Amino acid sequence: MQLSIAIDMDETIADPIKKAREWYYRDFGKTFTTEELHGKSLTDILPAEHKLKIREYLNTPGFFRDIDVFPHAQEVLEELNKKYKLFIVSAAMEFPTSLKDKYDWLQDNFPFLSWKQFCFCGDKSIVQTDIMIDDLTRNFAHFKGKPYLYSGHHNIHAEGFERILDWQDAVAKLL
Amino acid sequence: MQLSIAIDMDETIADPIKKAREWYYRDFGKTFTTEELHGKSLTDILPAEHKLKIREYLNTPGFFRDIDVFPHAQEVLEELNKKYKLFIVSAAMEFPTSLKDKYDWLQDNFPFLSWKQFCFCGDKSIVQTDIMIDDLTRNFAHFKGKPYLYSGHHNIHAEGFERILDWQDAVAKLL
Repeated sequence: MQLSIAIDMDETIADPIKKAREWYYRDFGKTFTTEELHGKSLTDILPAEHKLKIREYLNTPGFFRDIDVFPHAQEVLEELNKKYKLFIVSAAMEFPTSLKDKYDWLQDNFPFLSWKQFCFCGDKSIVQTDIMIDDLTRNFAHFKGKPYLYSGHHNIHAEGFERILDWQDAVAKLL
Repeated sequence: MQLSIAIDMDETIADPIKKAREWYYRDFGKTFTTEELHGKSLTDILPAEHKLKIREYLNTPGFFRDIDVFPHAQEVLEELNKKYKLFIVSAAMEFPTSLKDKYDWLQDNFPFLSWKQFCFCGDKSIVQTDIMIDDLTRNFAHFKGKPYLYSGHHNIHAEGFERILDWQDAVAKLL
């Protein structure tokens, strides 16, 4: 029987941070170094009033529509989709204007997937698959399958999870 | 520990059929009797070209925004929400223009629920809770918890599932 695998979107296959940094630079004329973000999320390093601005970006219709795909995510997910029952599981509900944008982005960038494989939720605790790849350890709290932490600047200090460093690393671990 | 419960939307707490019938009457000048729908879904009893019209309705932005709530669903879900970890799980992904409408409809009609409790998916096979209430038996195919079939004209012949006849019946069975 095919194993099932749940794959996160933001900061796992999609890069909203790059676009948020671009918009932040546009609005405030400054940006952040990779060193500043080490072990932290973007909102950790911003003053309170600018955190609200980031939320405003994420709530802007179109923000999620054309963000970059992580390197090699497309070809690796196409192969994973042959081996596993693959689902894209995103905690998209926090930003309801993103729902249609995320759907369209998935259809554009992962045309080999069907809408039957998409799941947009608020809380991933009710999603159970054999494997889950996610950049946020909190999404593994109720997960009974095998978790893989997708490495990112914000989770660099998280311990106790097998990691996927990038999509080429996923080939070695899952294909 | 609180048990978790997944509750479907269409034909469980929401009435898209009523609105589809109204639009069908507007466009074709006829409607269906309860007898015609007995044991059948709306699309079962329509000629092929009219089935496409029904899909067109469901893909119309706004269609799901103001449909009727099933009688007593609001007050019963408010009580269920105190006793259970409640999630609204809708296979909404088939109609992507419905995603934001369904989100807004839930916020309007069930203001005691948070977006963290919403889950819109394509295929419910990855959703696992202790209890599931749904009007479609196919959504129970991979479900490991306790299923309750929410009775409707289309599932009247389905056998082998404990039923919830309406939201007042749910009070007796779950509260």
